[in-house]
Amino acid sequence: MATTIKDVARACGVHVSTVSRTFSAPHLVNPATRNRVLAAAEDLGYRPNRAARALTTGRTFNLGLIVADIANPFFPSLIKAAQAQARGRDYHVFVADTDEDPRVEEELIRTFAKQVDGVLLCSPRLSNRMIERLAEDVPFVLVNRRIKGMPAVLMDVGKGARLALEHLAGLGHRRIALLSGPPGSWTSNEMQAAAAEMPGLDLVFFGPNQPTESGGRAVAPEVAACGATGVLAYNDLVALGLIEGLTAMEIGVPDRISVIGFDDILPGRLGRPKLTTVAMPAATAGRMAVDLLLQSEGEGAVITLDTDLIVRESTGRANT
Amino acid sequence: MATTIKDVARACGVHVSTVSRTFSAPHLVNPATRNRVLAAAEDLGYRPNRAARALTTGRTFNLGLIVADIANPFFPSLIKAAQAQARGRDYHVFVADTDEDPRVEEELIRTFAKQVDGVLLCSPRLSNRMIERLAEDVPFVLVNRRIKGMPAVLMDVGKGARLALEHLAGLGHRRIALLSGPPGSWTSNEMQAAAAEMPGLDLVFFGPNQPTESGGRAVAPEVAACGATGVLAYNDLVALGLIEGLTAMEIGVPDRISVIGFDDILPGRLGRPKLTTVAMPAATAGRMAVDLLLQSEGEGAVITLDTDLIVRESTGRANT
Repeated sequence: MATTIKDVARACGVHVSTVSRTFSAPHLVNPATRNRVLAAAEDLGYRPNRAARALTTGRTFNLGLIVADIANPFFPSLIKAAQAQARGRDYHVFVADTDEDPRVEEELIRTFAKQVDGVLLCSPRLSNRMIERLAEDVPFVLVNRRIKGMPAVLMDVGKGARLALEHLAGLGHRRIALLSGPPGSWTSNEMQAAAAEMPGLDLVFFGPNQPTESGGRAVAPEVAACGATGVLAYNDLVALGLIEGLTAMEIGVPDRISVIGFDDILPGRLGRPKLTTVAMPAATAGRMAVDLLLQSEGEGAVITLDTDLIVRESTGRANT
Repeated sequence: MATTIKDVARACGVHVSTVSRTFSAPHLVNPATRNRVLAAAEDLGYRPNRAARALTTGRTFNLGLIVADIANPFFPSLIKAAQAQARGRDYHVFVADTDEDPRVEEELIRTFAKQVDGVLLCSPRLSNRMIERLAEDVPFVLVNRRIKGMPAVLMDVGKGARLALEHLAGLGHRRIALLSGPPGSWTSNEMQAAAAEMPGLDLVFFGPNQPTESGGRAVAPEVAACGATGVLAYNDLVALGLIEGLTAMEIGVPDRISVIGFDDILPGRLGRPKLTTVAMPAATAGRMAVDLLLQSEGEGAVITLDTDLIVRESTGRANT
């Protein structure tokens, strides 16, 4: 006969509801009790039935995770961390990619709303107002978007932009091109706002740009023509594409133009020159976003994670 | 008043069921009729209701896509292509990552079975027998796994391995290390089978290896010690990790050891040396797998896609 939840409760001397909670909301059970219940469950070969649990609790034990571009290596590290964190609480994570299209984003949210207990919405392209409206259907945690009253995990993009621009200024660069990202990007707005407050720089803004290598390649001629000797790009993919485009025009990086990206993805560490970049804590953000989503308390909690500048080979002294 | 399916049918002089089929199974409607229906629907502002359709057809209009490691850049290009193809037929794709763990794979399949109309199972780690059993719950299309009677999209790994080994032999390499992948990998078995049939080579097999950069780094000392001058790695990540490991031991690639990967991912095109690799048609596989899944006919269809060797900088003459 199959082991039941009652057998487990009896074996470790707790109430059935404690066993149930250990599997459905382990963070609400004190660690000593939780360990005792899990050990007994393992000894007895008890395995909670997901579907039965969903029926009794009204939960699916699935989370949705929406990203703008799964092919950008920034997102897989966030996804893997979120998924590991969710698995520790017996949740699955389903990922969907919007291809940078706000209409697709909206459709995916509506579809997820019927099938998951909550959604991690990473770098959304929808307007704040639309996100607020959709939040009536399903709980959200936002990553890199700030909307009043909604839980969010943010990365300190402003600090990162300041560190990057100070680094360029310290190398003697004065005229600096800022390559923004797609419309609706919070990260892009934060970058621009921080840059606009930096004294003593001669900034040129280019955008919106596709947040991909081809977006970076496409803007290379304008960057070359504007007389900037330093560039801060929306993300590493744009920075890598820009370097490709400049190299094809025989403009050396960092000899003629210094380039800084955002994210710290693997290809930037392998290329030539290795990319100077603002490291964004993608994995930490993934983990914390899951924690926020599975906490019933702290509805409007906002976590801001630190960023840091990593100096590699794509920045050097200004040649004036 | 909202436009109904009847308005569309009347406007283009077809039966209501034809309009319905145009949205639910467009490949079953002849192209001229389909275009007429879609044009009328657009003119009239008709938009089929997903949920209502699911109720009448019993379909969810969602597909599941399961990969072993979303952080391997090979998979995002397959995912993006599958998703674009599915979207053209008004399906969403939800992605789940198994972290190379067959138990997680099984759980994800069971969870998807209740929520999607079919699953693309890419490079599974489960046994054939287990996959056959799970196929009773949900329709599958396999990618890079061959099970009798099940639809599959395969890549010609055997041909790729032969081209790679002939390239090494042509450069004078005789002793060649073959780095296999994880247990249960069809790709890995195909590579080994093809290699074992090549005459005149002195092969050394290492495995199973984790199919990641750290898997490649971990096996570097053994490869260095075995006297091989050429290596064929399970995938590009393993090849890149191996090159890192060998470089750290001051063993030059390709001066002392030539290395070939499989997949053709972006980091291999950016690194130094640029990686010689067998290009795997990930995007085509993603598209065709969706087509197979949404076709009601051709149940056991198997498509084998071509592969090709791309010679870059990580292979050179054997130094004997």
